[in-house]
Amino acid sequence: MTMTDHTIRAFDTDLRELTAKIVEMGGLVDRQIRDAVEALMKQDTALAKRVTGSREQVDGLQHEIEERAIVTIARRQPMAIDLRELVGALRIANDLERIGDYAENIAKEVQQVTVEPVDETMLQLKRMVELALVQLARVVRSYERRDVAEALEVWRADVDLDALDNSLFRELITYMLEDPGNLAFCMHLMLCAKNIERVGDHATNIAETVYYIVEGRPLLEERPKLDLTIRETLPSPAQ
Amino acid sequence: MTMTDHTIRAFDTDLRELTAKIVEMGGLVDRQIRDAVEALMKQDTALAKRVTGSREQVDGLQHEIEERAIVTIARRQPMAIDLRELVGALRIANDLERIGDYAENIAKEVQQVTVEPVDETMLQLKRMVELALVQLARVVRSYERRDVAEALEVWRADVDLDALDNSLFRELITYMLEDPGNLAFCMHLMLCAKNIERVGDHATNIAETVYYIVEGRPLLEERPKLDLTIRETLPSPAQ
Repeated sequence: MTMTDHTIRAFDTDLRELTAKIVEMGGLVDRQIRDAVEALMKQDTALAKRVTGSREQVDGLQHEIEERAIVTIARRQPMAIDLRELVGALRIANDLERIGDYAENIAKEVQQVTVEPVDETMLQLKRMVELALVQLARVVRSYERRDVAEALEVWRADVDLDALDNSLFRELITYMLEDPGNLAFCMHLMLCAKNIERVGDHATNIAETVYYIVEGRPLLEERPKLDLTIRETLPSPAQ
Repeated sequence: MTMTDHTIRAFDTDLRELTAKIVEMGGLVDRQIRDAVEALMKQDTALAKRVTGSREQVDGLQHEIEERAIVTIARRQPMAIDLRELVGALRIANDLERIGDYAENIAKEVQQVTVEPVDETMLQLKRMVELALVQLARVVRSYERRDVAEALEVWRADVDLDALDNSLFRELITYMLEDPGNLAFCMHLMLCAKNIERVGDHATNIAETVYYIVEGRPLLEERPKLDLTIRETLPSPAQ
């Protein structure tokens, strides 16, 4: 089971290629999220269609990563630390594919019903999207550099995204009560916000994987969670 | 690379155990979906909390399946057909974990805001849930029996779930316009319906994996999709 120099070099090449593919996939789903949100804001069905159309490219990359990792496991019978790298690559590709899924969910809504956009409602959502994409970019970089400190920062910052989602939910309820004409668009925004919040969750999953790859054990510390009681102050729409 | 009788027997045992774990995981996420929907219908936060609490169990099973499959790949260096079985097990466990995620999303909503349930709105959602769970049970059985014919039936039936989701969306808009007091509960139902629709999508993913395991090639035929123009007849809430 010991590796020859040749096998080690071959393994390093495999790993470098895997990392590059994952970084590429990160860029692709980042673009998908941006486009999906823009399509929603402008109710641009053509752009939404391009987002759902790019699914194949994401799936293709994921399958390539999966295949490469598994063939490497089968061929090189790597030792523990290297096996972690390969299992980690599988997990991260899976989380990135899910992020692409969320972009697609947002884009699908736009294709199903286009409604009049309500400008005032978008500011908070934009803030959420910006934060989620910063989290995504940072966590992909932390993987590229195997940088646990940066991964942990991403992991801890997710609570801010949850807080934004909660405050957006309350804001949207007020808009919907004020004018039923806003109803359909606000529902779009809310579904979109839920998907963006999930993007953040998967960024934290990736952070956990980076930790696992580098440290060789799972991250067990309790992640800071938003106090759910915040939402209990929500005004009842029946009032 | 040829397998001895001993290795073949060991591999068969690995595979039987993997299959049993996946069937167990299928039962677990089925229960989670049922409980999450019941918690929503009754606005039962205690039950919702049990659903989010069972996450660890699902994650634990998925990690066990992942580990077992990967160790089997590394140890036994399986040939193509057996490698497909192991890659298939990884993919199915992943889809089941996502289904558990959808249950958790539904349960989280109930924990964040409890609102007065609106009885009339629930019938259509119940139909969706029943159909989604039938799809889930059938596809898990098709995996257990490596039954491609049943997997293909599941794959084709997903279109009915999409149709139910679309008609529910329209119905909810009407309820919301009729009485703003229904607004918050209808939003819960809509988010719930989106999650149930995604359960169906993952059932079709599993069907595709069963096909891939048994037939040795991906299922490339175009899956019947709901004609999205159906929703275009939606009355504009601004009218």
